[in-house]
Amino acid sequence: MHKKERLIEIFDTTLRDGEQTPGIAFTQEQKSAIAKQLDRLGVDIIEAGFPISSTRDKDAVKLICEMGLSSKICGLARLITKDVDACIDCGVDMIHIFAPTSAIQREHTTKMSEEEVKTQTYELAQYVKAEGFLCMFSAMDATRTDVDYLIDLYKTAEEGGADILNVPDTVGVTEPFAMYELVRRIYKEVKAQISVHCHNDFGLAVANSLAAVKAGAEEVQVAVNGLGERAGNADLAEIVMALNSIYGLKTNIKTQLLFETARLIERYSRIQIPITRPIVGENAFAHESGIHAHGVIAKSDTFEPGIMTPEMVGHRRRIMLGTHTGKHSVEKKLSEIGMSCTKEQLDEILERVKELATGGKKVTDDDLFTIAEVVTGEALEQERLVTLKELSVMTGNNLIPTASLKAVVRGKECKSAQMGIGPVDAAIHAIQDIISGEIGGDVKLKEFRIEAITGGSDALAEVIVGVEKGERTVTARGVREDIVMASIEAFINAVNRLI
Amino acid sequence: MHKKERLIEIFDTTLRDGEQTPGIAFTQEQKSAIAKQLDRLGVDIIEAGFPISSTRDKDAVKLICEMGLSSKICGLARLITKDVDACIDCGVDMIHIFAPTSAIQREHTTKMSEEEVKTQTYELAQYVKAEGFLCMFSAMDATRTDVDYLIDLYKTAEEGGADILNVPDTVGVTEPFAMYELVRRIYKEVKAQISVHCHNDFGLAVANSLAAVKAGAEEVQVAVNGLGERAGNADLAEIVMALNSIYGLKTNIKTQLLFETARLIERYSRIQIPITRPIVGENAFAHESGIHAHGVIAKSDTFEPGIMTPEMVGHRRRIMLGTHTGKHSVEKKLSEIGMSCTKEQLDEILERVKELATGGKKVTDDDLFTIAEVVTGEALEQERLVTLKELSVMTGNNLIPTASLKAVVRGKECKSAQMGIGPVDAAIHAIQDIISGEIGGDVKLKEFRIEAITGGSDALAEVIVGVEKGERTVTARGVREDIVMASIEAFINAVNRLI
Repeated sequence: MHKKERLIEIFDTTLRDGEQTPGIAFTQEQKSAIAKQLDRLGVDIIEAGFPISSTRDKDAVKLICEMGLSSKICGLARLITKDVDACIDCGVDMIHIFAPTSAIQREHTTKMSEEEVKTQTYELAQYVKAEGFLCMFSAMDATRTDVDYLIDLYKTAEEGGADILNVPDTVGVTEPFAMYELVRRIYKEVKAQISVHCHNDFGLAVANSLAAVKAGAEEVQVAVNGLGERAGNADLAEIVMALNSIYGLKTNIKTQLLFETARLIERYSRIQIPITRPIVGENAFAHESGIHAHGVIAKSDTFEPGIMTPEMVGHRRRIMLGTHTGKHSVEKKLSEIGMSCTKEQLDEILERVKELATGGKKVTDDDLFTIAEVVTGEALEQERLVTLKELSVMTGNNLIPTASLKAVVRGKECKSAQMGIGPVDAAIHAIQDIISGEIGGDVKLKEFRIEAITGGSDALAEVIVGVEKGERTVTARGVREDIVMASIEAFINAVNRLI
Repeated sequence: MHKKERLIEIFDTTLRDGEQTPGIAFTQEQKSAIAKQLDRLGVDIIEAGFPISSTRDKDAVKLICEMGLSSKICGLARLITKDVDACIDCGVDMIHIFAPTSAIQREHTTKMSEEEVKTQTYELAQYVKAEGFLCMFSAMDATRTDVDYLIDLYKTAEEGGADILNVPDTVGVTEPFAMYELVRRIYKEVKAQISVHCHNDFGLAVANSLAAVKAGAEEVQVAVNGLGERAGNADLAEIVMALNSIYGLKTNIKTQLLFETARLIERYSRIQIPITRPIVGENAFAHESGIHAHGVIAKSDTFEPGIMTPEMVGHRRRIMLGTHTGKHSVEKKLSEIGMSCTKEQLDEILERVKELATGGKKVTDDDLFTIAEVVTGEALEQERLVTLKELSVMTGNNLIPTASLKAVVRGKECKSAQMGIGPVDAAIHAIQDIISGEIGGDVKLKEFRIEAITGGSDALAEVIVGVEKGERTVTARGVREDIVMASIEAFINAVNRLI
C-alpha cells in the first residue's frame, strides 16, 4: 500500500471550515496573513472561503486570489449556479461543490431526493468544468450515506467531470478500519483522485484520514490546530508528520514551519494551544520525570519518537523542573551556567526543587539558581531590585482606582500612592514611581496578557507581562486567584529579571 | 471481533503518567479529590502513583488506598524488590511492574541485556504474586521492541504469574493497523488479559488503543484530558465514548460524569481545555454557521454524531452567534424571549450581528437583544433587576479582597459587603447576596472569560460572563479600562437579561 514515492496533497481548510469554528472570526488582514503563511508552508490547496455566504467571505476569497500565491485557491459552493458564479467572480482556481447525501441530512435540511442530488451534481460538475475550473465534489455526511448510492453518486460526479471526489466524515462517526473499507471500495470504482475530510468528534480525525490514504486517497483536508466545526478537522501538523515519519510518504510541506504556523493561528484564533498538544504544544518535546529526562539527556530517541525530532517541526527540546525531576536534569542545568556542587548539595537542591513544585507551582530556571545559591553558599552576583512589602488597591464606580504600596528597592524602603485608569494600572504606576529614581529612567510596559482563566470568578488567573528598558525586554508570569495581584506579581518579576 | 457483550476495563493513569506531565503537580488534596471523582465515574483501576519515586508519591498512594474506594488501586514499580515493597507498604490492590525492552531504551538507560530483563521480569512477577497482589507487567517501548523477543518476554511474565500484560506505545510511534497486527499476534500467544497504553505524539493514541481492543485487548489505559508525558496518553472521554457509541462495547463508566470530570482536572492541572476539544470542549456540541445551525435546530443528529449526544456526556448544546450565523439561529433566540420581527427587520438584525462579530468579537445574547431592540424599536418591557449605584472594591497582599456595594433591586435600595478570593469574586458575592432573596435562589456563574486585552495596562478589558439559573443560561459582555469593573458590568448585564 505504501509506495515510498507517493505524494499526498494537503488541502487546507483553516480559512473555510476552520473559520466556521463557533467563536472564531478572522479579520481580512488576518486571513491574508494566514494565506501567505500556508503558501510559505507549502500547502497545495487553500480553501479560502464560501463566497456566496456573505459579502465579507466573498471579498476575502477575492483578495486572497489576488495575492499571487503558489498554492491553488479553492472556493466552496452548494449545488447552485449562483454559488459557483460567486466563486468564479473571485478568481479561484478550484471550485468545491457539495451536497448533503445521507438520508438524515437530506430529509431535514435540503429536502432533496437521492435522484435530485444526482441530477444536480452532474449538472453543476459539468457547469464548473465548462467554465474551465478544477472541480471537487463532496458528498456531505458520506460516512452515514448508503454506500451503493454513494458510489453511484461519485460515478455521476465523475461523469459530470469532477476531478476530485471528497469523502467527508462530516460528523466524525467513523473509525479507521471502517474508513479504510469505505475508501477502498470507492477507490476501486472511480478513476478520479480521492480526497478525505474528517471531523474529530471522537478524537479519530487524524487516524481516519490516514486510513483513507492507506486505502488510496491522495489528498487530505486539514486545518491548522485542528480548527473547524464542533471538535474540528484533522490537524495539519499531525497529518503531515504521520505521513512523513510513520508512513514514509511525501508531502510538499516544509515541516520546519509547522510550529510557527500553529502559533500564528493560535494568536489569530485566540484558542490557546494546550501544552499537551501533539507536535506543536509546549510539552511535545519536554521532559520532567527522572527516568524520561535521564534517558533523553543520554540519547533523545529513548523517550521521543526519534522518527520525529523538534528540529524537524521547528520546535525545541526542553528539560523541565518539577516534582518528578531527577538528579540528571538539575546537574545539567547547573553545569550550563558554570555552577558545580557536591553530591550532598545536589540531593539537597533536588529536594528543594520538588518541594517548591508541589502544589502545581512552575519551577523556573531562576528558582533553581536561587535554590542552588542558597545550598552551595555561592551567590550568582544578582540582586533583586524590588521586593514588595505591602500593597493596597481600591477601585469602584465612584472612586478613582488607587494603589498604595511599600516596597524595598535595593535595600531602601520606599512608599508611593498613585492613581490609574484601573487597579492594575494604578499599582504599576506606583511601582514605576519608586524604581524610576533608582534605575534612571522608566521601565515600560510592553505586553499585558491574561493567559488563562477557567471556570468561575474564583479560578486562577495567569498574567504575562512584558517590560522594556532601552534595548532589553523581559517577560514574566504571575499566577494568582486574584487577577489584580497576579498582574502585579508578574510586573515585579519581570522588572527584577530585567534589571 | 466486536462481541456486543464484551466489557472493556478502564485503567486510569491521570495520577501517575498524567501527573508526570511537565508542569503539573497535584497537591495531596487534589489527588484525593481526583481519586474520588474517578471512583464515582466508574473507573476500574486507578494508577495512583509511583511510590518509590518520592515520599510525596508514596504518601499520596497510601492515602488513596485508605479512602475505601470501589476502584482497584494500582502502584508502579521498576523490576526492583524495594519498588514492589514500596507499593505493598501503601496497601495497593495491584502492582504494575515495568522495564524498558527496546534495544534503544535498554542500551541508553538501564543497560540491561534481553536475558537480564527476562530473568528479572520472571522473578519480580513471582514475588508480586507470592505476596498476594494482582500483577501487571509492562514491556516499556513495546512498539519499538523486537517482536519475537517481546512475545518471549510476555510469555515469561505470564509464567511468573503476571495477570495482565500491558502493551505500551511509549513514544507514540505506531498506527492503528500496525497496532492491530502486534496485539493480535500477542493475543494468540498468551492467555493473560491484554492491556494497552498509548501516547499521543502523532495524535493517534485513541485510534491505536481502539485498534488494540479490536485485536483482543480487554483493558485500555487512559488519562483525563489526555494528560501525560509529552503529548500525553489516550483521552479517557474519547476512548469511553468511541467504545460505547462507535464499537458498541461496554465499560463501567457513567458517561454523564465525563464532562464534569474533565472540568475538575482542567482546574487542578491548570491546562485549559480548548473549545475545540472532542466531547468535553465548549464547541463539542456548539453550532454557529448557517447550514449547521439550521440543520441542528431542525434535528440535532444532522450535524452532530447522533450516536453521542451532549446529554450522554453531561454537556450541553449551544447555538452561537457570529459572522457565519444564519437567520434560523437569530429567529430562534428572539422567539425564546417572546420577540418577533418582520423579514426585513430580521435581515437587518442579522447584518448587524455579523458586523459586530467581524474581527473575532464574540456576540453575546445581550448584544443580540440590544440590536433587536434598536432595529424593531420595541424595547423589551423589561425592568432591570439590578441597577448599580455605588461599588468599592479593595485588594492587596495583606488584606482580604472585599467589595461593598449599594444597588437598586426592583426599586428597593440594598447594600452588602462580601469577601472573595479576589476583587471580582468579592463583588460577585455581594451582588448574589442582594439578589438571592428577590429571585429565590442563586444565579450561578458558568463562564468567565477575559476576551481581549492588548497593549498596556490601560488598554480596554473585555469580559464575557455567562450566568445560569435553573435551566436558563445567558451570556453578556462588559467593556471597561478597569478589568474589575468590566467583570462586574458583564455580570450585572447577564443577570438583568437572565431574570
